[in-house]
Amino acid sequence: MSDRYLVISSDGHAGPRPEIYRDYLDPSYREEFDRQNEARMKALELAGERLEMRQESQQWASDKAHGLAGAWDGGRRNEVLDADGVAAEILFVDGLTEENSPPFGGDLGLMPVGVDPDHQWAGCRAHNRWMSAFCSESPERRYGLALIAPFWGVEKAVAEIVWAKENGLRGIMLPHMFTGQDPYHHPKYDPMWRACEERDMVIHFHSGAAPMHEYYGLDIFRARDPEQLAEPPVEMPGALGIYVTEVAWWLTRPLVYMIWGGVFERFPTLKTAVTEGSTIWVPELLHLMDQRYGDHHFSAKLGTGYKKHLSMKPSEYFKRNIKVGSSAMSRREAELRHEIGLGTIMWGSDYPHPEGTWPSTQKMMVEVLGGLPDEDITAILGGNAAEFYGFDVAALQPLVDRIGPEKSQFRTE
Amino acid sequence: MSDRYLVISSDGHAGPRPEIYRDYLDPSYREEFDRQNEARMKALELAGERLEMRQESQQWASDKAHGLAGAWDGGRRNEVLDADGVAAEILFVDGLTEENSPPFGGDLGLMPVGVDPDHQWAGCRAHNRWMSAFCSESPERRYGLALIAPFWGVEKAVAEIVWAKENGLRGIMLPHMFTGQDPYHHPKYDPMWRACEERDMVIHFHSGAAPMHEYYGLDIFRARDPEQLAEPPVEMPGALGIYVTEVAWWLTRPLVYMIWGGVFERFPTLKTAVTEGSTIWVPELLHLMDQRYGDHHFSAKLGTGYKKHLSMKPSEYFKRNIKVGSSAMSRREAELRHEIGLGTIMWGSDYPHPEGTWPSTQKMMVEVLGGLPDEDITAILGGNAAEFYGFDVAALQPLVDRIGPEKSQFRTE
Repeated sequence: MSDRYLVISSDGHAGPRPEIYRDYLDPSYREEFDRQNEARMKALELAGERLEMRQESQQWASDKAHGLAGAWDGGRRNEVLDADGVAAEILFVDGLTEENSPPFGGDLGLMPVGVDPDHQWAGCRAHNRWMSAFCSESPERRYGLALIAPFWGVEKAVAEIVWAKENGLRGIMLPHMFTGQDPYHHPKYDPMWRACEERDMVIHFHSGAAPMHEYYGLDIFRARDPEQLAEPPVEMPGALGIYVTEVAWWLTRPLVYMIWGGVFERFPTLKTAVTEGSTIWVPELLHLMDQRYGDHHFSAKLGTGYKKHLSMKPSEYFKRNIKVGSSAMSRREAELRHEIGLGTIMWGSDYPHPEGTWPSTQKMMVEVLGGLPDEDITAILGGNAAEFYGFDVAALQPLVDRIGPEKSQFRTE
Repeated sequence: MSDRYLVISSDGHAGPRPEIYRDYLDPSYREEFDRQNEARMKALELAGERLEMRQESQQWASDKAHGLAGAWDGGRRNEVLDADGVAAEILFVDGLTEENSPPFGGDLGLMPVGVDPDHQWAGCRAHNRWMSAFCSESPERRYGLALIAPFWGVEKAVAEIVWAKENGLRGIMLPHMFTGQDPYHHPKYDPMWRACEERDMVIHFHSGAAPMHEYYGLDIFRARDPEQLAEPPVEMPGALGIYVTEVAWWLTRPLVYMIWGGVFERFPTLKTAVTEGSTIWVPELLHLMDQRYGDHHFSAKLGTGYKKHLSMKPSEYFKRNIKVGSSAMSRREAELRHEIGLGTIMWGSDYPHPEGTWPSTQKMMVEVLGGLPDEDITAILGGNAAEFYGFDVAALQPLVDRIGPEKSQFRTE
């Protein structure tokens, strides 16, 4: 028995600067990239003046340049992770938000509106190529995800999944916003689910995207041309409060569609993770879906047609096929771990994002998990992720022995 | 002390048949009504074949014609309420779904898309006139709500609120779906909030509307022309399961916008009710909003601009200004009443809808509330509603003494 914990962060972000992404773009898109990048930077600057959230991020980052370079510098990243006690991580796009977003909407939001499909795919592919190279530097520590834009043709998505697997990426990220597109219970996505199941590629949804135009009352995030913002918009009070209240709901929505749609019935070993939306919603969502599935007064009106293709209760698919990445996990989640499901929770650091645990990762881990039984801490910090993702735990052990958080810190007696 | 409970149903539905609504329409819309009504009936028939939910409703209704006529017949309605033990009720549109929907989308959904604004208003006004007359038959028992379509000009909404108050209606119902329209934190709605606050008109949102096109993959509910449905659509498995999982979230969304937008800060005595979405979501929603409001790790990124216009925590506005109508309340809600807020819950029957308690109302009340302390049952069944809506309890007492459920039924010892 090691006296240190294996820590796998379910939520890490990485990406290079725009000029590097340019090199990874198909050459035919580089001219358009140059044209759009200048306007994009101007729009971001204008948006930054309006959005307090962005200003706060910039202030937080102002004295952390050395560590933040781990967003794209592999050596620096391993240095940061060693100090954090993190042995391995799941790697999403969006290193430093705005500075490291791939071009053309091939970004963490993967929005299904306001983008050109070919361009969005070009942005996704540029990122996937970069991420493939980045992970190959430390494959035992880096579980890289390919960005997949499924709404512009399922066959293209499948082809990119095949490419990703062949090039060392181990899972995919899909958009959770499907405004105006076929949602995930549409049978047309079956080839995509099959491609992931056959290759043991875990599907991910990551928090962030939401209908910002409803909160802010304008297309501030999609404005390519800063002139569009010349007219001062009506101030919508509390917009950010609404965003942070709703954002996790939009994240979890695809799970509801996939479960009711029978995706996990047809693809029983397909794995899906939702990340950075906390885990607090899990018990009520499962209770609600099971109630709607079961026999009760309300269901007199519902008949049985909507569930006859499901052999299990919704919560049973959830527990079998789904895990939840809890980024900068709270003490309340730790206390509710049995209601949420001890096997469901995967701790995450969200490095290098300002709402994450870095640079106080080990201190925050102890605050959140201190005093819990050793086996519970083991599961949450890394055990659940190791099993779900199939990490080579033996290969990581020497690293854990050197950098893992010491178990003694978590004991309260 | 009476040995019977005052019961006020927070959720009743009433409306006449289409040919009667026609008489309440402005004459200039009647020709268009005749043109649309035939197509509407055909579309409903086609939809009925596809939607199992509708078939189940029809089967449930098949042997209940006498009692269901209370949807539009005031004498019959009082007879049904007497047998149910219900002294008074809040009256929404949508008596028997489909059979009693006002024309032109002036219905329970009040959808902001796929309707002509003038026509929708004409449908709303037809209903408001009918409801005004219906409530005048038994004003002490019937708290009627005006349908208000706020997206087509706030001044029109205010004018209809003024008309409604002058004509005996006592609250309003607003749409909770605002797709493509300015959401409720937009300051442009302030005159509407003011008109309601000044007249003590309670604002209502009622469950039902949701993005059905996302669930069913087609515009089945808005199809005016049945020919549009000639092409058999792709079957979307589990669509109804998704609907019943999400529907309460769409209902509660306006509360989040109003609270964060400072509506209850600027209009501190404005009252709002949300109805038929259960009450189970209340504790987590309040916890989440308070957490986002308060100081915690996550808020490092958020700054303070999004909440500086709020003098109280979100949960404090909720408890002061908002109540929740629990239709066909569950035992689980009764058990969680203190977490939800004993003063928040208003029992409702949902008569004459098939998912409501009628015709087993008193039996279901006892199953759900039996064994609770007398004062808790008093609050949930009618006390909370009496105070919130300002019912004349003394005027209702003789009726309660005659038809109210006997308290002895609820005692378990």
